[in-house]
Amino acid sequence: MSGHSTYADWIAVDWGTSNCRAWAMRNDGTVIAEARSDKGMAQLAPTDFEPVLLDLIDNWLGSEPIEIIACGMVGSRQGWQEAPYQTVPCKPLADDLAVAPSNDPRVRMRIVPGLKQDNPADVMRGEETQIAGFLAEHSSFDGVLCLPGTHTKWVQISAGEIISFKTFMTGEIFDILATHSVLRHTVSEGWDQDAFLDAARDSLSKPELLAQRFFSLRASSLLDGAKPSESRSRLSGGLIGAELAASRPYWLGQNLAIIGERKLCDIYAAALSDQGVAPLIIDGSGITRAGLTAARQNQKELAS
Amino acid sequence: MSGHSTYADWIAVDWGTSNCRAWAMRNDGTVIAEARSDKGMAQLAPTDFEPVLLDLIDNWLGSEPIEIIACGMVGSRQGWQEAPYQTVPCKPLADDLAVAPSNDPRVRMRIVPGLKQDNPADVMRGEETQIAGFLAEHSSFDGVLCLPGTHTKWVQISAGEIISFKTFMTGEIFDILATHSVLRHTVSEGWDQDAFLDAARDSLSKPELLAQRFFSLRASSLLDGAKPSESRSRLSGGLIGAELAASRPYWLGQNLAIIGERKLCDIYAAALSDQGVAPLIIDGSGITRAGLTAARQNQKELAS
Repeated sequence: MSGHSTYADWIAVDWGTSNCRAWAMRNDGTVIAEARSDKGMAQLAPTDFEPVLLDLIDNWLGSEPIEIIACGMVGSRQGWQEAPYQTVPCKPLADDLAVAPSNDPRVRMRIVPGLKQDNPADVMRGEETQIAGFLAEHSSFDGVLCLPGTHTKWVQISAGEIISFKTFMTGEIFDILATHSVLRHTVSEGWDQDAFLDAARDSLSKPELLAQRFFSLRASSLLDGAKPSESRSRLSGGLIGAELAASRPYWLGQNLAIIGERKLCDIYAAALSDQGVAPLIIDGSGITRAGLTAARQNQKELAS
Repeated sequence: MSGHSTYADWIAVDWGTSNCRAWAMRNDGTVIAEARSDKGMAQLAPTDFEPVLLDLIDNWLGSEPIEIIACGMVGSRQGWQEAPYQTVPCKPLADDLAVAPSNDPRVRMRIVPGLKQDNPADVMRGEETQIAGFLAEHSSFDGVLCLPGTHTKWVQISAGEIISFKTFMTGEIFDILATHSVLRHTVSEGWDQDAFLDAARDSLSKPELLAQRFFSLRASSLLDGAKPSESRSRLSGGLIGAELAASRPYWLGQNLAIIGERKLCDIYAAALSDQGVAPLIIDGSGITRAGLTAARQNQKELAS
């Protein structure tokens, strides 16, 4: 592959906090190759990004400069090059991508800016590209997107623009409670859908009791022999129920789609279905790449 | 000291999850010496406890057996010897202490049982001894005790008995969010009392929004340059406000005392004063020792 300048037409990069994925792309949208590294932003200094990327995509580079479009935390203040936020309401993709400095003449690297909301203060980096990928295929979508994950985003979309959004640390709080708190003895692998739904329902109807639910899981495990899979599902249900209580204006009576990893989407969808909401579920694999493709197309149109 | 059997009359031990403290005591209540180890239950196997204790108190041991009374996680299933829970309602101290097996004829070790509540399921180990220490000096107290800490306890007391209690993981959640989550970049040392009170008030009146407050701290730091001391105080206020919302039946219109480390007591008292509640603040240093003293006295009276 190496040395063949027409191997790929461009390279798409999704570079988040905990890992980096890259795809060698053809103009027609074909993915020729992909590569992955666990060197996410969290463990890199600004000057580390370029060598990590070159190492990852070296096989795909030829003698001519190749266009690279990236999104995610690589564009944060602690990233390769800060790509300043756009302010909502706005389209998910900015007209201008940030140019990341490079010492290697074979690469021309640009980064998609994140989005910010002034009041209430909120930010996203990476999800704007997923949203662009979704809108590329659902251009007339009007309603709300839920992107569940470490930091779940609820996003109000109208006429191709992001009107407002709200971030919940639900996934991260679940992980750190399950890993670092006294609950690590109580929750483990496994899933109990009934326990999840029961906890989500209870938390949604009485979210003000969230703070007292956590230790109850520990006590129920000690006294009643609650199974780790049940406790884990109840912890997830309690947290997601509280998120749904606080995000109610985003989903109640709205046209709703959930985008992301299938298993996580199904968990959110189950809690919402229990409230009589029927969300559309969109498999998130490939959607960031579709968004990066849209960003590239956008640039071409602006240049022509 | 070593070899002098009358050096101490007995030894009091407070052995929790993260450390162990021991006091060489005279019958008249005088503390002759104290020792401390960071070898808490979390890092010990059941057979490790005895050597760790002997190492800590070796200087205080003589040729005659000495009585040792301990409380805390040392009596849990993963401790030296399980001291099975008493069930509330009951007095804080059980009539029977658990005998911990020892290979050293110089020590006679007993452990104060923890307490459990069947519905809603809850447990405590160590706090029952603090409560006994408090009641030894305030025998006619009728009302509610708040013991703030890693796992804050709210305890309803009547006629010398513990009627019910509720545990909140507020301290632990604050610590793991500040240490392990994305908020570690946002919160740091320092304190802003106005920000704390504002966040506590807001969280108390709208506890259902707890889930969305966390990431807002990160976003406010990024976008509005919120100071780390302000963010830290708001995180604390949000969590304590949510705890106070869920524990409202424990403090609203009740005779309330807060027992613990002075600084933490003051934080809880400030949030409660803001709601028109005027709690009594009891310095917690020495109160576990007073409870262990009461446990020993109790045993003597039962034996006589």
